[in-house]
Amino acid sequence: MKFTKMHGLGNDFVVVNEKTVPTDVLDLAVKVCDRNFGVGADGLVYILPSEIADFQMRIFNSDGTEAEQCGNAIRCVAKYIYDYQLTAATEINLETKAGIQAVSLTVVDSKVTAVRVNMGSPILEGEKVPTIFNENPVIEKEIMIDGTSLCFTAVSMGNPHAVIFVDTIENHFVKGLGPIIEKHEYFPRKTNVEFVEILNQSEVNMHVWERGCGETLACGTGACATAVAAYLTGRTGPSVTVRLKGGDLFIEWDQEQNVVYMTGPSTVVFTGTWLL
Amino acid sequence: MKFTKMHGLGNDFVVVNEKTVPTDVLDLAVKVCDRNFGVGADGLVYILPSEIADFQMRIFNSDGTEAEQCGNAIRCVAKYIYDYQLTAATEINLETKAGIQAVSLTVVDSKVTAVRVNMGSPILEGEKVPTIFNENPVIEKEIMIDGTSLCFTAVSMGNPHAVIFVDTIENHFVKGLGPIIEKHEYFPRKTNVEFVEILNQSEVNMHVWERGCGETLACGTGACATAVAAYLTGRTGPSVTVRLKGGDLFIEWDQEQNVVYMTGPSTVVFTGTWLL
Repeated sequence: MKFTKMHGLGNDFVVVNEKTVPTDVLDLAVKVCDRNFGVGADGLVYILPSEIADFQMRIFNSDGTEAEQCGNAIRCVAKYIYDYQLTAATEINLETKAGIQAVSLTVVDSKVTAVRVNMGSPILEGEKVPTIFNENPVIEKEIMIDGTSLCFTAVSMGNPHAVIFVDTIENHFVKGLGPIIEKHEYFPRKTNVEFVEILNQSEVNMHVWERGCGETLACGTGACATAVAAYLTGRTGPSVTVRLKGGDLFIEWDQEQNVVYMTGPSTVVFTGTWLL
Repeated sequence: MKFTKMHGLGNDFVVVNEKTVPTDVLDLAVKVCDRNFGVGADGLVYILPSEIADFQMRIFNSDGTEAEQCGNAIRCVAKYIYDYQLTAATEINLETKAGIQAVSLTVVDSKVTAVRVNMGSPILEGEKVPTIFNENPVIEKEIMIDGTSLCFTAVSMGNPHAVIFVDTIENHFVKGLGPIIEKHEYFPRKTNVEFVEILNQSEVNMHVWERGCGETLACGTGACATAVAAYLTGRTGPSVTVRLKGGDLFIEWDQEQNVVYMTGPSTVVFTGTWLL
């Protein structure tokens, strides 16, 4: 099996272009994704023909389950398709388990340098995020953690986020407070937690605690929720560069369509031939 | 840069065959070994020409330091050299930072299936292992951990080991007791800790807590120390298969030469071309 190893802000994938997925794909994903005995990746991604879009993508996680979609993987797939000349188009429709995703490519010297993805509309009704509050939106709500008062803004991008603006992101915030807020009674389905420093009207730093994962290098929906919360609370304009540990994402909240676009890089690290 | 990804019992390496190492090799090792942004490995290994042996090998760790040697890497290098037909010999001398290492290859269908490495003589004098005891050897010495009495046998294979025979390796032993024994006052330079179940005269199970590393899938010197301790205490013969989480090692303590030989596998996982 020939493959290309790619990453989007450190979220890494073994990407293959095939006609079909093998019948043992779930086992194969576990083997290939193993970081000592395999190639090592967060997921095994298949680029396949589609009858309803330009291409189909399927993502198999390192634990042997299939993912519905993943913003970082979509950027890798889009770069693969264009850089390897499977298409000459810079607007591509991708069939995923979560529906058809339209992506736009930025091309420099015949290579994709950035991919813009439509991330849908933010959900701001407190009960739909979900939180226990019925305000719409839930903004600057106080939460007490170990005697410390913090304020969060609640945004769902399909998954719940509690965005917390702070003067300085201190080292213990993410790993110390993140898991407590994740499981706080205010969030009936738990929540992702973002700690955010405002740098200026169009730039923020963000560290993220992902629900069920812990601290990660980057979280696309978290960056979108952060930009929405920053604009809602008057801290930035509707377009923001979000600086994450794994790199930068550019987020635009298009007010007319009420759609959030995420633009970010994807990187080819190496090509390989699997021999086991 | 073309490379081959290999592992020896899960201890994994990016192996390249070059005339020289690049001047930025320490930086390159950090980049290549990164498990999200690079290939991902425990080390970057160069196979080079030698003026004093058949080949030279140099190992650069994922933290950007150079290693003196590594038993698992040597097996990978030996397989690479033979499988890629850099030699037709099955006895190879390898120049390492720790001196010349002689290795013997087992070949099946033109491929190396196992590599035997001379691991040197065990050191049994208590003060040289080192322990605080002056017996020679230090056998079945009692040690109290949290009110539980255990017995260890001390063996150095260039690094110190405390081998503890138990009826059943319980889940909490390695991570619960390992770090306490590692730093116990009996071991002035700390110690690696092996928990060992005897299966029969020639087979044992071993779980290992490595000094400064924590639990690992496999430890070559730990397997050697275990075989020595098992023979010294009358539990096995001088040749033992040691079953580790990462796979099996066959250890022979040659009484005439007082030398320990370790035989184990190495595996090619994939070939690749580094593009960054």
